[in-house]
Amino acid sequence: MARIYNFSAGPAILPEPVLKQAQQDLWEFGESGLGIAECSHRSKLFDAVAVSARTRVARLLGVSLDEYAVLFLQGGARGQFFQFPMNMLQGGRATYLDTGRWDDMAAKDAARYGDVDVAWSSQETGWNRVPNDDDYVVQNDTRYLHYTSNNTVAGGEFRHTPDAKGAWLVCDMSSNFLSHPVDGTKFDFIYAGAQKNVGPSGVTICVIRRSLLDRVASDVPDVLRYDKQVAKDGMVNTPCTFGIYVIEQVCRWLEDDMGGLSGIEARNIAQANKVYAQIDGTDFWQGKVETSARSRMNITFTTGNPELDTAFVKAADEARLSGLKGHRSVGGLRASLYNAQTDEAVDALVAFMAEFERTNG
Amino acid sequence: MARIYNFSAGPAILPEPVLKQAQQDLWEFGESGLGIAECSHRSKLFDAVAVSARTRVARLLGVSLDEYAVLFLQGGARGQFFQFPMNMLQGGRATYLDTGRWDDMAAKDAARYGDVDVAWSSQETGWNRVPNDDDYVVQNDTRYLHYTSNNTVAGGEFRHTPDAKGAWLVCDMSSNFLSHPVDGTKFDFIYAGAQKNVGPSGVTICVIRRSLLDRVASDVPDVLRYDKQVAKDGMVNTPCTFGIYVIEQVCRWLEDDMGGLSGIEARNIAQANKVYAQIDGTDFWQGKVETSARSRMNITFTTGNPELDTAFVKAADEARLSGLKGHRSVGGLRASLYNAQTDEAVDALVAFMAEFERTNG
Repeated sequence: MARIYNFSAGPAILPEPVLKQAQQDLWEFGESGLGIAECSHRSKLFDAVAVSARTRVARLLGVSLDEYAVLFLQGGARGQFFQFPMNMLQGGRATYLDTGRWDDMAAKDAARYGDVDVAWSSQETGWNRVPNDDDYVVQNDTRYLHYTSNNTVAGGEFRHTPDAKGAWLVCDMSSNFLSHPVDGTKFDFIYAGAQKNVGPSGVTICVIRRSLLDRVASDVPDVLRYDKQVAKDGMVNTPCTFGIYVIEQVCRWLEDDMGGLSGIEARNIAQANKVYAQIDGTDFWQGKVETSARSRMNITFTTGNPELDTAFVKAADEARLSGLKGHRSVGGLRASLYNAQTDEAVDALVAFMAEFERTNG
Repeated sequence: MARIYNFSAGPAILPEPVLKQAQQDLWEFGESGLGIAECSHRSKLFDAVAVSARTRVARLLGVSLDEYAVLFLQGGARGQFFQFPMNMLQGGRATYLDTGRWDDMAAKDAARYGDVDVAWSSQETGWNRVPNDDDYVVQNDTRYLHYTSNNTVAGGEFRHTPDAKGAWLVCDMSSNFLSHPVDGTKFDFIYAGAQKNVGPSGVTICVIRRSLLDRVASDVPDVLRYDKQVAKDGMVNTPCTFGIYVIEQVCRWLEDDMGGLSGIEARNIAQANKVYAQIDGTDFWQGKVETSARSRMNITFTTGNPELDTAFVKAADEARLSGLKGHRSVGGLRASLYNAQTDEAVDALVAFMAEFERTNG
């Protein structure tokens, strides 16, 4: 019963009330006599969970289920890198904004299905910036503009919703999904791996504008077709029922306990500000992203000395602060402060950073 | 704390010791201070779980990890219907044995990628039989023979491993996976949705002979490529970590508590025999499958009267026996007796059937 401070980039910390409820429901869900992981995905019992999860996700994003469909699929956000263009590109043109490692991969996967135009990139400067609307061109015949709203690895985040300039707007929202208010109606397709802000790994949330459903390519296998999945409520194959259950619980926690997306945004801003203030307080630390593009979810920083960074991670682990190592592709340090992160953990991190600086500065 | 008798066809009952352990580990896994669903899939903590799960699955199937790779993928067994031929067929010929609803779908999905020969079918008689080796022909140039070892819907099961006659042997083993000893070395590719015998839904176990890995088609996206997934231990995308954890626990339970596959087979035979004895005891019930092909996992039966079948399901639900309705495509009744099914539940079912027959016969 001694949980440590968990800054993992994902799978990541879950809200403690949700964990407590999940412990109970694994054994018996409500008064049903069945564990939540042990009932048919087609049972009334589970259907109520799935309907509630879809309804809550749509409500939080401010979209209507008449205009949008919510799917809980599998295969990771990584799977959507090919699945969306496989369904929708059909030899057409797609424009990608490259603000992180995953954009690069997404653009490469899309290139199997059409012409890909990388209209803007901060790759050469370590993905430390994001573009403004006037920094990129979307050509006239472009089917969709793809971007990643928060870049888990580099630690950059869009503070605005980019203009798709007439194309469909497609967003990998994995690592800041439901972390702040969003006008969902600006988007044509949103996808997100659940394992950052809203659940365990194993579920990919897809929110698709229904008018896209009759544009699906004809040669796509049923499991991968959005139209078939929507027609069957995401059950062409058996969905990850436990994951969907946790997502429903997390959305319930967001709406009922945390004041919805404005409430959680305020907490997320306050937490991120505390850590950035520590980074900016002296020359000991350096943030890795331009100030205007700093993520509230994944704070990337470094002492500037790889050996000292390694010592920091080791000492933090010993002090029961876990998951602070930067992504293997970039090194350095990273603190992930997703929705479920606690103020107590953030305070412990800031105090630990101050102490580490004092003894190593 | 009042669990009822659960005969769901999947997601299905899990072993109670595994559920108890999972309740604890959701909060804190061992002495780690982290919940099992909240740690990075790349952490040492989770890696040990994944390695153990792969090792135990291979050991239970009697295959070496030098010759075979074990993957925990996503998208259901349904996803493998297209994924295997997408990787491996490449315009060649595949032969399917059609002994159930899912074979029919699998063959149709494969037809996108090559020539499919359905060499034997019991579809016209409601998939109530399975073939012997001399009942079908595998043409000389056939890449693989595909069959389904247990048919969840119709309730038929192979008692033998079919002869692939020179082709690769590919098996959808979803609904009797690890329910009885199998010589895994006879197979080139085994796949199974976890949600019948070994875990929650959301994981597809794939066991592939390593010599197939250099035969993967070049135009397959990385997430779907077996060779790329094997090279990255199934982590091209973030895997379903909680599901893999439960699979590891179930394999541990099988090996340590249940006497391995011989032990569980003896229990499965005894349980199935009790229910079939009740079905065969009088003319009130009819089994739906030829005696030689009767499944030990999914026992399909009927009173012969749809209204009476419906009354049975309703009365059973009221008596706290859940999940006895036949699959929506075939109607009738179905009792699923997967590995985790308890003797107590089976005795309760048999007693309930006897009482139902007494009052409605």
